[in-house]
Amino acid sequence: MTRQCDEPVTQLHVKPAMTVGELIDAMGKAGAYNGGALYRAVNIYERMLKDEETTKFFGLAGAMVPAGMGGIVSDLASGGHIDILVSTGANLTHDIIEAIGCKHFHGTAFCDDIELRHDEINRIYDVYLPNEAFEHFEEFMQGVFGELEPQSRISISGLLRRIGSHLKSGILHTAAHNEVPVYCPAVQDSMIGLQYWLFSQTNQVTVDAFADMPALMETCFTTKKAGAMLVGGGVPKNFILQSMLMTPNGFNYAVQLTGDRPDLGGLSGATLDEARSWGKITEEAQAVTVYGDATITLPVLAAAVMERMQHD
Amino acid sequence: MTRQCDEPVTQLHVKPAMTVGELIDAMGKAGAYNGGALYRAVNIYERMLKDEETTKFFGLAGAMVPAGMGGIVSDLASGGHIDILVSTGANLTHDIIEAIGCKHFHGTAFCDDIELRHDEINRIYDVYLPNEAFEHFEEFMQGVFGELEPQSRISISGLLRRIGSHLKSGILHTAAHNEVPVYCPAVQDSMIGLQYWLFSQTNQVTVDAFADMPALMETCFTTKKAGAMLVGGGVPKNFILQSMLMTPNGFNYAVQLTGDRPDLGGLSGATLDEARSWGKITEEAQAVTVYGDATITLPVLAAAVMERMQHD
Amino acid sequence: MTRQCDEPVTQLHVKPAMTVGELIDAMGKAGAYNGGALYRAVNIYERMLKDEETTKFFGLAGAMVPAGMGGIVSDLASGGHIDILVSTGANLTHDIIEAIGCKHFHGTAFCDDIELRHDEINRIYDVYLPNEAFEHFEEFMQGVFGELEPQSRISISGLLRRIGSHLKSGILHTAAHNEVPVYCPAVQDSMIGLQYWLFSQTNQVTVDAFADMPALMETCFTTKKAGAMLVGGGVPKNFILQSMLMTPNGFNYAVQLTGDRPDLGGLSGATLDEARSWGKITEEAQAVTVYGDATITLPVLAAAVMERMQHD
Amino acid sequence: MTRQCDEPVTQLHVKPAMTVGELIDAMGKAGAYNGGALYRAVNIYERMLKDEETTKFFGLAGAMVPAGMGGIVSDLASGGHIDILVSTGANLTHDIIEAIGCKHFHGTAFCDDIELRHDEINRIYDVYLPNEAFEHFEEFMQGVFGELEPQSRISISGLLRRIGSHLKSGILHTAAHNEVPVYCPAVQDSMIGLQYWLFSQTNQVTVDAFADMPALMETCFTTKKAGAMLVGGGVPKNFILQSMLMTPNGFNYAVQLTGDRPDLGGLSGATLDEARSWGKITEEAQAVTVYGDATITLPVLAAAVMERMQHD
Repeated sequence: MTRQCDEPVTQLHVKPAMTVGELIDAMGKAGAYNGGALYRAVNIYERMLKDEETTKFFGLAGAMVPAGMGGIVSDLASGGHIDILVSTGANLTHDIIEAIGCKHFHGTAFCDDIELRHDEINRIYDVYLPNEAFEHFEEFMQGVFGELEPQSRISISGLLRRIGSHLKSGILHTAAHNEVPVYCPAVQDSMIGLQYWLFSQTNQVTVDAFADMPALMETCFTTKKAGAMLVGGGVPKNFILQSMLMTPNGFNYAVQLTGDRPDLGGLSGATLDEARSWGKITEEAQAVTVYGDATITLPVLAAAVMERMQHD
Repeated sequence: MTRQCDEPVTQLHVKPAMTVGELIDAMGKAGAYNGGALYRAVNIYERMLKDEETTKFFGLAGAMVPAGMGGIVSDLASGGHIDILVSTGANLTHDIIEAIGCKHFHGTAFCDDIELRHDEINRIYDVYLPNEAFEHFEEFMQGVFGELEPQSRISISGLLRRIGSHLKSGILHTAAHNEVPVYCPAVQDSMIGLQYWLFSQTNQVTVDAFADMPALMETCFTTKKAGAMLVGGGVPKNFILQSMLMTPNGFNYAVQLTGDRPDLGGLSGATLDEARSWGKITEEAQAVTVYGDATITLPVLAAAVMERMQHD
Repeated sequence: MTRQCDEPVTQLHVKPAMTVGELIDAMGKAGAYNGGALYRAVNIYERMLKDEETTKFFGLAGAMVPAGMGGIVSDLASGGHIDILVSTGANLTHDIIEAIGCKHFHGTAFCDDIELRHDEINRIYDVYLPNEAFEHFEEFMQGVFGELEPQSRISISGLLRRIGSHLKSGILHTAAHNEVPVYCPAVQDSMIGLQYWLFSQTNQVTVDAFADMPALMETCFTTKKAGAMLVGGGVPKNFILQSMLMTPNGFNYAVQLTGDRPDLGGLSGATLDEARSWGKITEEAQAVTVYGDATITLPVLAAAVMERMQHD
Repeated sequence: MTRQCDEPVTQLHVKPAMTVGELIDAMGKAGAYNGGALYRAVNIYERMLKDEETTKFFGLAGAMVPAGMGGIVSDLASGGHIDILVSTGANLTHDIIEAIGCKHFHGTAFCDDIELRHDEINRIYDVYLPNEAFEHFEEFMQGVFGELEPQSRISISGLLRRIGSHLKSGILHTAAHNEVPVYCPAVQDSMIGLQYWLFSQTNQVTVDAFADMPALMETCFTTKKAGAMLVGGGVPKNFILQSMLMTPNGFNYAVQLTGDRPDLGGLSGATLDEARSWGKITEEAQAVTVYGDATITLPVLAAAVMERMQHD
């Protein structure tokens, strides 16, 4: 037996009332496939959160807020575990919808979408969102936009901070309250963007697409270390990983929860090793990808890491 | 808002030291995608295990034992939660290997397989199994086979029970000890089968491919209800689901943990709704599919169900 | 036998030297799973291209240009088959790289990324891109940006048209030459964006994030019909589908080639039926999703459709 | 630029009426992801078929016959391109159904399965199979089984050859006519198996599970070279790959078309490199995996290889 074989797989036994942290430790001793990867993700994320020299990026893609995962993100933000948040516009749209008191509902993916259309229900896989939520959303958004100073220029994160400051719960509220910048490079690509287009038909405020870059790059050039928690791929993953590319450094920690696959070539499913070739993450970076649905992997990871954080 | 929208998505908040059961309940209130499906799987499996009129089938496919998931299966068997086990030959091979004292090891999927070959290490994704394990395996298997009565005829489950009765731990041991029949329709397709072929070159015992069918069909025709827990797809899933096909009934409960996808047409990824069209599961059956890696979904499901079982 | 069973599956027989169109027709007679879907995609895309009342959108996500798929896109654009192109910034970056004479190379995904890093090679799954390409890219981009009028304001599509007008081949060149607008909502999220940030450190031109919306919305409100060919998901898919959302209409044709899966809830893998509930596509829209790698499905689809177009 | 970068990606341009072989060559010059892999698969399969020293194995898993892919398999068998066929029982069941004149039908995956149940239609993703086909199937199978000599012993391949000799088309017919052995280790796990169980209630013929092993192993030990074309994973893939494991050799050629993914640890999605560590394929073996739906990849591959074979 060679040196390569020194840590044996331990058959996993569950016990009633075990904590999530205990289960994760048992999954680590089993140690294979994505179960083993999830254990390593907990280890890396724990170290990343405890490393005070590290700027903590969080990437949020996929329809996570409609699936109830927004609570984890706002808790992490209010706990000081997110320094920079990069999100799709859709997640922020749904965050606003919840924050203004509208609800998403449990539905089913096996249904007649034309019937749903007639019932004025929008479907996100097995989540239903009544159309009327968008009426409240429009009213709210136009109200916020209406307070923008005419002829002014604003960054995307500035716009999102304005929105967050009008809310009392959720991701944008928490981020605004804790001064966590929220970047959303493709904000036009969302209902927020469509509402802004409506507003812009009769108002003149310029949203400067690149106004967020200087502050972000400043952080990237000055931070000692950087860490990335990536939920889903898309723009948030790429925008976070590329942010260190112009600096002499790269990410020192990276955890990726994705449902995509690497062999299609797309960035969303690309391994973090691929990111090493680019220098997006450092050669020595602690990095792991967990393949699977983040509605399972994110809660388990978050619960296990919070359990460990409390123990200290 | 219509009748279709009555159960809202609740944003999930994790708490330090929450139990797996508590996390699952929170995932159920979030309720979307595979996280929501996993919650429903816990509900259905709990009801299935508590239903004393139900014959409980367990299907085991995918390289689960090398990944440490065998412990969950043997615990379920010793706890009386498995009446009939259907497995691939590979899982049983690896179960024997562990039971005779050999080990699987934590490795990596990103390695040089030719180098591993030179080091006499066999790889299963990121699990390593030294070749020498197969030397012990051969010795053990030939010993067991050598006790078979010459010129006799034996069923596959009979052969596996013989093997299990020579072991002191693991799935086959537990099944033999608890008189749980283990079916393995494709036993030739495994190292057990290759060892049997070696034995058969100088010995004459007939393994009757169909000798297990009468007892299985007898159970299917006489049970009041039937439930299926399916880990992976393959032969175990199909063999279990087809077993009720000749009877006037079908499965009343079905939980499927699979990493496959339905649109490729293969049975492994097929939805359980598809099984309704065949009558494999009843029209009213409680059934759910959780897509994802069973090294994550199986431990979470098992821990949550065991937690609930204890509460009663 | 019911009315539901009237078109039989025909076993497929290949013949030497059959054309792609002939093979697709045979796959249509077989008609199942993604092979059948690909046949239907050919039918729908053919009808869409031939429908002169239809505005033709093309969404380009995933690392398609590094994989050699850019040629198909520029051919479609020069053939008049794309009215509006929405792309990720990455695809446009790689398009520019090729257009300025740099090359991507055949590599392998099973390699040592740290070694690649030392060799100054960036990896995209099994495609290699030498770092020096980015040196030429920087020189080119800074040259283009340097011609922008100081203190001016520009839209993203305007910026991309400027770039394209400096090139002699590729997607951006062809689009600029044929006056096809190219939208790239998340242009910051790409090497184009990083180059622009470099430029903006010493120059003041405002890229107005929303400046493209009026023209796009004008088209959406005035077109009789709309069709979408979606390669990959991400921002291009969402941005295209949402564009009709504010109008009384929706897309009449939609073809989606994606490697994602629906059960994760993300838009990239969402079915087009889901889009019907939102009204993004019409109730009567002809729509189909083909799951698979677009480096296979796109060439086959394009070749078959071009074959049919020629026959008319 | 290093030695690693010598073969550039060529942007792909489709031409009307190009043959499948021409398209594959263009996909090879693009050369990335699964499109590039499919080109390499064509190369390897062509060499394998032309290598007269090679025993050609074909593995058939997944519901390929209901999807019309059986025609390709029987054509390959009648063309002398298959020496040993290993199949799931389901594919052979559906092959028999077609050969006795029943049909599968184009359906839809988005339907009410309980309604289908009431209409006596069995669903395989988007393929429909009326129940009455199984009535004809039962009649045919009982007729074939009724001719078995009482008290005799038969191998699985022997049983399948008997069935094939009663048919006039399809895979089993072609295999029987061309003396291609068909192995189906899990024959019990299929409607063939259930019919045999019915027969066995009143008749005594022993199907010897291991009776096929000696001839198979004899071939494996004596062949100079071995090649494997694997459509899907499951028992056929494993049974084929393990067959060379007891010999000093391994497979020299291997092509795998699979929709699974490697990170779940299961054999169906495992890379062929993994098989090198076991010695199932040789260190120098030409091997490639194409991820995707075989209803697309198999026809394209078969058409391209047949085109090349004709050119010689």
